Amino acid sequence: MMNYEKYRRGYYIPPEVCNDWVTKEYVDHAPTWCSVDLRDGNQSLVIPMSLEEKLTYFKLLTKIGFKEIEVGFPAASETEYTFLRALIDQNLIPDDVTVQVLTQAREHIIRKTFDALHGCKHAIVHLYNSTSFAQREQVFKKSKEEILQIAVDGAKLLKTLAEQTDGNFQFEYSPESFTGTEPEYALEVCNAVLDVFKPTKDNKVIINLPVTVELSLPHVYASQVEYMCKHLKYRENVIVSLHPHNDRGCGVADSELGLLAGAERIEGTLFGNGERTGNVDLITLAMNLYAHGVDPKLDFSDLPSISQLYEQVTRMHVGDRQPYTGKLVFAAFSGSHQDAIAKGMKYREEHECPFWEVPYLPIDPKDVGREYESDVIRINSQSGKGGIGYLLEQHYGYNLPKKMREHFGYTIKSISDHRHKELLPGEIYEIFLQTYVNNSSPLNLHDYHFVRSGDQFKVVLTMEFNGKIQDVTATGNGRLDAVSNALRKLTGCNYTLTTYEEHALERGSSSRAVSYVGIDPGNGTTVWGAGVHEDIIASSIISLVSAVNRTLKE
Amino acid sequence: MMNYEKYRRGYYIPPEVCNDWVTKEYVDHAPTWCSVDLRDGNQSLVIPMSLEEKLTYFKLLTKIGFKEIEVGFPAASETEYTFLRALIDQNLIPDDVTVQVLTQAREHIIRKTFDALHGCKHAIVHLYNSTSFAQREQVFKKSKEEILQIAVDGAKLLKTLAEQTDGNFQFEYSPESFTGTEPEYALEVCNAVLDVFKPTKDNKVIINLPVTVELSLPHVYASQVEYMCKHLKYRENVIVSLHPHNDRGCGVADSELGLLAGAERIEGTLFGNGERTGNVDLITLAMNLYAHGVDPKLDFSDLPSISQLYEQVTRMHVGDRQPYTGKLVFAAFSGSHQDAIAKGMKYREEHECPFWEVPYLPIDPKDVGREYESDVIRINSQSGKGGIGYLLEQHYGYNLPKKMREHFGYTIKSISDHRHKELLPGEIYEIFLQTYVNNSSPLNLHDYHFVRSGDQFKVVLTMEFNGKIQDVTATGNGRLDAVSNALRKLTGCNYTLTTYEEHALERGSSSRAVSYVGIDPGNGTTVWGAGVHEDIIASSIISLVSAVNRTLKE
Repeated sequence: MMNYEKYRRGYYIPPEVCNDWVTKEYVDHAPTWCSVDLRDGNQSLVIPMSLEEKLTYFKLLTKIGFKEIEVGFPAASETEYTFLRALIDQNLIPDDVTVQVLTQAREHIIRKTFDALHGCKHAIVHLYNSTSFAQREQVFKKSKEEILQIAVDGAKLLKTLAEQTDGNFQFEYSPESFTGTEPEYALEVCNAVLDVFKPTKDNKVIINLPVTVELSLPHVYASQVEYMCKHLKYRENVIVSLHPHNDRGCGVADSELGLLAGAERIEGTLFGNGERTGNVDLITLAMNLYAHGVDPKLDFSDLPSISQLYEQVTRMHVGDRQPYTGKLVFAAFSGSHQDAIAKGMKYREEHECPFWEVPYLPIDPKDVGREYESDVIRINSQSGKGGIGYLLEQHYGYNLPKKMREHFGYTIKSISDHRHKELLPGEIYEIFLQTYVNNSSPLNLHDYHFVRSGDQFKVVLTMEFNGKIQDVTATGNGRLDAVSNALRKLTGCNYTLTTYEEHALERGSSSRAVSYVGIDPGNGTTVWGAGVHEDIIASSIISLVSAVNRTLKE
Repeated sequence: MMNYEKYRRGYYIPPEVCNDWVTKEYVDHAPTWCSVDLRDGNQSLVIPMSLEEKLTYFKLLTKIGFKEIEVGFPAASETEYTFLRALIDQNLIPDDVTVQVLTQAREHIIRKTFDALHGCKHAIVHLYNSTSFAQREQVFKKSKEEILQIAVDGAKLLKTLAEQTDGNFQFEYSPESFTGTEPEYALEVCNAVLDVFKPTKDNKVIINLPVTVELSLPHVYASQVEYMCKHLKYRENVIVSLHPHNDRGCGVADSELGLLAGAERIEGTLFGNGERTGNVDLITLAMNLYAHGVDPKLDFSDLPSISQLYEQVTRMHVGDRQPYTGKLVFAAFSGSHQDAIAKGMKYREEHECPFWEVPYLPIDPKDVGREYESDVIRINSQSGKGGIGYLLEQHYGYNLPKKMREHFGYTIKSISDHRHKELLPGEIYEIFLQTYVNNSSPLNLHDYHFVRSGDQFKVVLTMEFNGKIQDVTATGNGRLDAVSNALRKLTGCNYTLTTYEEHALERGSSSRAVSYVGIDPGNGTTVWGAGVHEDIIASSIISLVSAVNRTLKE
């Protein structure tokens, strides 16, 4: 039962107007990326990853180019603890990669976290406690002062244990459920924690502002981030980080507007895995930068392989419409889209365009490991002549006359409409061959001879017609005209030749030629035929024979 | 191969600053919704819907409450034409629903569209042509003036044919690929079209500003929309509509910020079906309003049924993390989340909260037809005592002592971690029973008798111990103390009883009772046992026997 009156907006507006970010147009450099796939992502799986799977995933993340990777909550389960130990003991962390571990602000959990970190050269220790109004009231039943004290005590213990533990530690603090926290109070807590950590130029502290649950429109979150950025102490030594979830479907917008508002770092996951609706998808964020001409500093040139590995270890499914990665995100079934793409690709070829601007394709699918052939122009009853013609040309080299492409387009659409299915390139080619090419019944060409006499050509055709072989002779202004006259004489079919085009099918002198012929059988319509032969003359005669055969059969 | 230098930002900033929208906080009323599932959605399916499937889907849309439904592009294929005719001829369009049809600004297509509309009482005729820089240059190879003329000519023909055709027609115009069009030029074209249509108070014209391909951040689109809203002619008689796609993952943000910027209508689809990455998901938009306490004017109280029908007719899959609808969007596997949800639900029960504010659950799952039992708290190695305890209480009525819940939590997490799988409520219950309840080996209770004498209780227990049945007698300050002394005597196990709790399992006098006992076997740890029996005394003895048995076995 839907009762909207049961709800109210559970977020808080900053105490001052913070909309400077809106005057910035786009994100002009990549933020620091932090993958939380192995923690937030893993934590939200029906079956969390095994140790082996985590190691595989960790390698994938470093290969993509992540320099900061949250590897788990070592105090939370044996597998998480063992995984961190495996990374450290087997020396699997590349020198330029920093692992990050999460801990609640509770003494025994912080101690266990540092136990797990022994021998780790460099790590980010990520401390959090929940600060929202709802959690203070319902879960912790504590005052603002008491909740702040939890954070401060946690920070102090972090500092003490870090000093006692080998290794180089950076601190991160999250006022968890930031989006449900009064901004002034979140600021107070963060500044109290910063007063403990005392960030320096050489050891900056990360303040992470999670969209634990998405509660507001993205511009409200941006204003909250801007407010924090303007008032955090030690600002020059603080890295402001975002950690957006996607409950309202705006995780990407939260991240991008938050970056405009002053944040410098993003925590997220591949394909937006994570609690409930997921964390923000880092592939989308990185590829959005890329599509704006900004270096994303992550390598997604082989998204199909990344998808496959992701699906294997997480047992999740990458949606068909997932930006940049889904199976259908470059697909065009609609006629007008196909036509525009085909023309755009042709324009690009002919004009050496410096920038990618093909209509309906926000990026070049090849850049992320996809293929034009199978991923872009796909044919069903919604498709049109442009796409079908493009496909026949790209896959099989047939460049049909414009009007013939239209006729073939209707033929294909109608077949797909009736069969109620997509037609693959092979099926379209088969239909093309059967419909137009080298039709040899009732007329079949057995032989031909030309004699030139001045401006005139004389032809002797040896034809099979309705099973009977006979020679027929005629003259004309050109070879094809002579053949046409001969066929008219033989069949009694009184047509006009309206279109003739021919081109080589392959490169080189031994290539086959294809001819296309359109004839008007006297009623204003056009009947099409095509002929394929090594010899250009034979090809043209056969195409005409095909068109006449189709006329005779109709 | 990734080469970001191949890209540039392909959108255009309005010629004046248009950021008034940023001062508005949220969308305070539902826009006019227009479903384009049967057109844009259908057009992007590998297998478009059959006539029967379209009719089923149309009924679903009207049931949800859509009053404007784009039913197709009748000039595009036989199925689309037939579908519109079926709706009209079989009188399937409810009186309060307006169908919308799409047509390119080309004469023969417009004429066929009106042919298809004969007998339709009321329809929106939606005219479009592409206006973007890229399409003008690459696809149409026409000047701005020529492209504007296509729109104007189309509008004129629409007006003429509408006057010649029975029925009541409203006009809509889309400068297609608006996001790649210079805003000043889009405005010029729209105003020229409006000059043809001459909208009135009684027949308003819809100007639709599609995010045909998402090219900019959402706040840039909002500023484009605001610019159009400020400068469109006949503004009071124009309905500004949005039609966002999702290439950059910001379709929802585009819509919401666009509404703040002055738009009044949204075209989109259920579950974000549509070209490539899809159209904006109207379920997310509507439920976002709902979660802010705003009437969405669409009924999504049974999302599981809607999902099922959608998957059946479109052959698409609703993602597990799709906002509001995915299988996992209300799931909490993590211990701290489960704990907060359990406490939040309890708080809600105890305080008669007027508003829904349970942590980690943006809306009450029951509102959209989901269940707490199967959809919210789910148990694997990431889970904690709070969730496991909550689940045992909700499903089976066992309310464990706090410390026992912690012990059971670790037991369950460890089993899930080792089995590498999710544990369902039935499995957790089974483990609970096997671990703690009515353990009867090596000690087994056969009978008991109490005699009260002043402040003291004397007990005679008939016990089986290591296969041998014997009576053992002891006294104590209370019945349980006497039993405890007897068991210590019999077994030689020198424990202290540290915790005892008991509660009824069902309601009514014939219900069973469950007792929980914690004993310290002398080493500072706690061993837990539980007993279930119709009689409250038997239940408590059995719980102690269970705890002692567990101690003896350890």
